[in-house]
Amino acid sequence: MIRYSTSISLDGYTAGPDQSLENPLGVGGMQLHDWLRSLAVWRENHGEEGGAETASTDVLKAAGANLGAYVMGRNMFGGGPGPWGDDPWNGWWGDNPPFHLPVFVVTHLPRTPLECEGGTTFTFVTDGPEAAVALARDAASGRDVMINGGASVARQCLEAGLVDELGLDVVPVLLGGGERLFDDVGGAIDDYELVELVSSPAAAHFTYRRRGKG
Amino acid sequence: MIRYSTSISLDGYTAGPDQSLENPLGVGGMQLHDWLRSLAVWRENHGEEGGAETASTDVLKAAGANLGAYVMGRNMFGGGPGPWGDDPWNGWWGDNPPFHLPVFVVTHLPRTPLECEGGTTFTFVTDGPEAAVALARDAASGRDVMINGGASVARQCLEAGLVDELGLDVVPVLLGGGERLFDDVGGAIDDYELVELVSSPAAAHFTYRRRGKG
Repeated sequence: MIRYSTSISLDGYTAGPDQSLENPLGVGGMQLHDWLRSLAVWRENHGEEGGAETASTDVLKAAGANLGAYVMGRNMFGGGPGPWGDDPWNGWWGDNPPFHLPVFVVTHLPRTPLECEGGTTFTFVTDGPEAAVALARDAASGRDVMINGGASVARQCLEAGLVDELGLDVVPVLLGGGERLFDDVGGAIDDYELVELVSSPAAAHFTYRRRGKG
Repeated sequence: MIRYSTSISLDGYTAGPDQSLENPLGVGGMQLHDWLRSLAVWRENHGEEGGAETASTDVLKAAGANLGAYVMGRNMFGGGPGPWGDDPWNGWWGDNPPFHLPVFVVTHLPRTPLECEGGTTFTFVTDGPEAAVALARDAASGRDVMINGGASVARQCLEAGLVDELGLDVVPVLLGGGERLFDDVGGAIDDYELVELVSSPAAAHFTYRRRGKG
């Protein structure tokens, strides 16, 4: 199954305005992930103590279960736009990225694959999101593929009918600007039905599945 | 306390596109109220049988509790734009409207008050939302005032800092167009903090309160 899951503000933004190297999620955009950082399971995975166990815990665990590969956009991989350069950006996540699986990065600029500690490999795909999803599906060997942002890659996958399950984690903030997921999707979501809606005090989790998909 | 509560689509619309007499909530807009119509308590109040009791039941009951008056916009009262005419529209709700309280309708066009069965009186206020809220507050005699749409009246009240409690009932539909609540609000909501987030299978209910308000 191909899945896409994203945190989204109450006013529909998956990133705030003025995205930059300093503010990869735009101004105020880090608040989109407050619900994650408040969870004990997330904090444990990131070497931090404390945190809560809520209905969001199960949502996070389900999102991470049965994965075989990831697809993400160039912005999510990081490093800003333009050529990779001689000493190219290796992603936001340090030497041991938290994916531990093959990751397919959609970019216009070719680059040799990047192998990291812990089983994460980044493969750079220059012929579009659909090609990246096809490669990821093969690499996943029957497990799920998670499309992991940004919004433009996700929108293209939604429009191409590639997404079987759509997860929207609606957080109680207004960003007032930035990247909106649904402005160009048109009727692309008409084929989906809500299969679950649960909430914790920090987020409301909407899960949609494409009709005809388990 | 002055409260405003509205159903809002996942893409941020409080009404769909092409509002008209036939489609007062715009195309697809009636889906905004599916969560209400699915509740036993709502159906009972409207002479229908069946329905569910969910976390949304408590939200609906809380929204209706301790009210002393309503404020609404001309579109919510109904009848379309322009002069009232000789045989003016008396609202969407028949001879016995479901308010049973003083209702203050914000309009540019003066009209004598309308008394209905069951204790509902419509008073037409031509000097803006703030004046309507002030009149409603007096009429409410210490009980709460509910601002009841549409979005433009609500936005003006939010911008003027008049809303003490903001309830957003987020429903799992995309309308793709229409009237967006938060496009012109700017930072108006920065003064609010989330005090509750609960969900049923039909809606996620976000309740905000203005800082410093009980």
